[in-house]
Amino acid sequence: MTATSVARGATTEAAARIMARADELGAISSRADALERTHLTPEHRVAADLVGAWMREAGLTVHEDAAGNVCGRIEGLRPGLPAVLLGSHIDTVPDAGRYDGPLGVLLAIEVARGVRAGALPFALEVVAFSDEEGTRFASALSGSRALAGSWVEDWWSFADADGVTLADAFTAYGLDPGRVADAARRPGSVLAYLEAHIEQGPHLEDADLPLAVVSSIAGARRFALTVTGHAGHAGGTPYERRRDALVGAAELVLEVERVGRSSGVVATVGQLQAFPGGVNVVPGRVELSLDLRAEDDASRDAAWDRIRTAAERIAAARSLRFDAAETYRADAVACAPWLQDAVRTGAQGAGVADPPVLWSRAGHDAMVVAGLAPVGMLFVRNGNGGVSHSPDEIVTEADVAVALDAFAATVAQLARRLEPGDTSTAATDEDRAPEAGA
Amino acid sequence: MTATSVARGATTEAAARIMARADELGAISSRADALERTHLTPEHRVAADLVGAWMREAGLTVHEDAAGNVCGRIEGLRPGLPAVLLGSHIDTVPDAGRYDGPLGVLLAIEVARGVRAGALPFALEVVAFSDEEGTRFASALSGSRALAGSWVEDWWSFADADGVTLADAFTAYGLDPGRVADAARRPGSVLAYLEAHIEQGPHLEDADLPLAVVSSIAGARRFALTVTGHAGHAGGTPYERRRDALVGAAELVLEVERVGRSSGVVATVGQLQAFPGGVNVVPGRVELSLDLRAEDDASRDAAWDRIRTAAERIAAARSLRFDAAETYRADAVACAPWLQDAVRTGAQGAGVADPPVLWSRAGHDAMVVAGLAPVGMLFVRNGNGGVSHSPDEIVTEADVAVALDAFAATVAQLARRLEPGDTSTAATDEDRAPEAGA
Repeated sequence: MTATSVARGATTEAAARIMARADELGAISSRADALERTHLTPEHRVAADLVGAWMREAGLTVHEDAAGNVCGRIEGLRPGLPAVLLGSHIDTVPDAGRYDGPLGVLLAIEVARGVRAGALPFALEVVAFSDEEGTRFASALSGSRALAGSWVEDWWSFADADGVTLADAFTAYGLDPGRVADAARRPGSVLAYLEAHIEQGPHLEDADLPLAVVSSIAGARRFALTVTGHAGHAGGTPYERRRDALVGAAELVLEVERVGRSSGVVATVGQLQAFPGGVNVVPGRVELSLDLRAEDDASRDAAWDRIRTAAERIAAARSLRFDAAETYRADAVACAPWLQDAVRTGAQGAGVADPPVLWSRAGHDAMVVAGLAPVGMLFVRNGNGGVSHSPDEIVTEADVAVALDAFAATVAQLARRLEPGDTSTAATDEDRAPEAGA
Repeated sequence: MTATSVARGATTEAAARIMARADELGAISSRADALERTHLTPEHRVAADLVGAWMREAGLTVHEDAAGNVCGRIEGLRPGLPAVLLGSHIDTVPDAGRYDGPLGVLLAIEVARGVRAGALPFALEVVAFSDEEGTRFASALSGSRALAGSWVEDWWSFADADGVTLADAFTAYGLDPGRVADAARRPGSVLAYLEAHIEQGPHLEDADLPLAVVSSIAGARRFALTVTGHAGHAGGTPYERRRDALVGAAELVLEVERVGRSSGVVATVGQLQAFPGGVNVVPGRVELSLDLRAEDDASRDAAWDRIRTAAERIAAARSLRFDAAETYRADAVACAPWLQDAVRTGAQGAGVADPPVLWSRAGHDAMVVAGLAPVGMLFVRNGNGGVSHSPDEIVTEADVAVALDAFAATVAQLARRLEPGDTSTAATDEDRAPEAGA
């Protein structure tokens, strides 16, 4: 067996380094009072250079790809073998926590530190994706989309709050928009993608366990909804004459919660505003958002059917109009069963005898990379009620140490399973692990 | 009897003039695509000068008071007698109709046209108030407050959307903020105030009648409400952990409607916005407004108690916090019974045998002038479903003709009732009409 395990003392040291580096990255922000580090900003440059330096220090050969993803590689038994990728992202939401994204990158660097060049039956790469959150340009997951070859051409004209387009920002960062396709990995060149991520929920905290195996990444749909009635003077429009869009929207918000609670689908109205918005004007229009997430696409779509039917009933009863425009759709992505097995075995190797299996309610780079190669994910306990996209998210150094052991053991599992000639762990043809070098 | 009646042919001609002048004023706007004419703007200057010119043409002696109200006067039996005021306002909301305010001013000018100097036992004044809507500075009713001696000193520092303060705007308009008290009328110098206004509701249209007598102007309270929960990631926060401020606010919006419908109080949520407002974030805070209007203060306050109690119950059930700040309070203002009688008699004189009695759900300059003198009001049918604060409000020339006859006949009633020595129409001491010259 090739050596990917980390000695106990080394784990303790590496976990402390991960915590310190998460703090260090967390201080690279465009705001003095909060963490905000978005795509192609000066802070992104500083963070990318720092992560690149850490990769080199751990023994990786580093390059920045044509989309600004920082990639560090260790060759396998011979140069140029297909790679197993370990990654996550280094951009943030506004007022972010310091672990969402960076934790997965920092864990991957420490896993790679334990790997000698020429030791594994595949190349090992660590990828720090440039843009997962899409905070600056609404171009969510653009880093992994560039790598997976699913770049969206429409993004070029997307502008940030200052009117700077993504194309201009690419150029200012030193990238060439015309060459973004160079970031796309060739099919077959990636054997698997593994991502460790802080859990964006409280399930591990509630279960009092440090790690979980991820079964799938939620199928999601988002809608921009509009309820239209008729604005009128609050004093002069009797109830029987009102077509109050806000009262209709309020009924809809409650219905969305009812559908979510009763179906196991996560349904959320995050945005809602009444127009014209006068204190003395009956609202004539309400704009609201709907976010649906489910473990599988069928239950997600069934929830939407129930919500749409309810909205049409509510609108009809109040002489309102209901319109819906789908703004985002991502089908559920299953983590490959053989990678789930590897993650489970890795977790067991780190002392977590029976890691829970969770589906990810949030999106991750893994769901995009799944278009290129099978993916697996590992969740690390969030110690503060599962709060996410918030400076209050917490991971402990002890959990990081367990996660590191598990992540390293998972890679060791892959080395075992991907040794040339060994396909015994793949249960079916569809499920078969690509062979190294295949 | 002093002659205030308008001959039939003259009425027809005057009604046509009122319609044409409403159109002419309606074209004086800061926007090409809609009517918006706010306090102390260049458009206000043009409108005030035009109204002053129309007053002069009708035989009135015109001055602009220290708050920018345009006042035209016809002396009574002898110069300097206390006055009966007829008025309304010439400022607008954004995207306004052309009758809300100007109709009352234009009717008053035509009533005054029919009055000879020295003919009445009181002076007759027409007042075009400068600022009723408070669109530009949130200084609602400031024109009538200046006249009634209830100016609010805090207003001086209120700024418009461009950061111009009310004090600076006064100066730029050629007014002296230090002299605004000069606009205040001496107690006893005003015998009564009468205002004709387009109904801001559909009651007259539903009753198929052109005119109504106003019994009172609504008691109103406004509140800024906040529902506070905890923001969280939409995917990562299970329902049982959510403290979703928007779902709580939605329950409250529905409760506000229930209380209004069941109590005869008009309760409206006109503003509502969820924060932080991310499509994938459970709302941690909702800010909403509440507007309450009732014929009397007791029912208004009882409705607020029910709403507040419900809000606290909703908040407790969802681990939310509910806060309320009162932003506006106006007690109900009763129109003086003897002025209601005069308006009714006036309407009957114009052929409306049994004019309905309505309470005004909207505020009017009359409610402020009531602090100085008894007030009466006359509503004119709004021919488009009662739509108000909208370009769609409609009055017909035929209704304007009836309103003009009624308004003139009402003034004739006052001339009869306020003749020296005649107090027979005052039912009680509290209710007694001030005697001319008293």
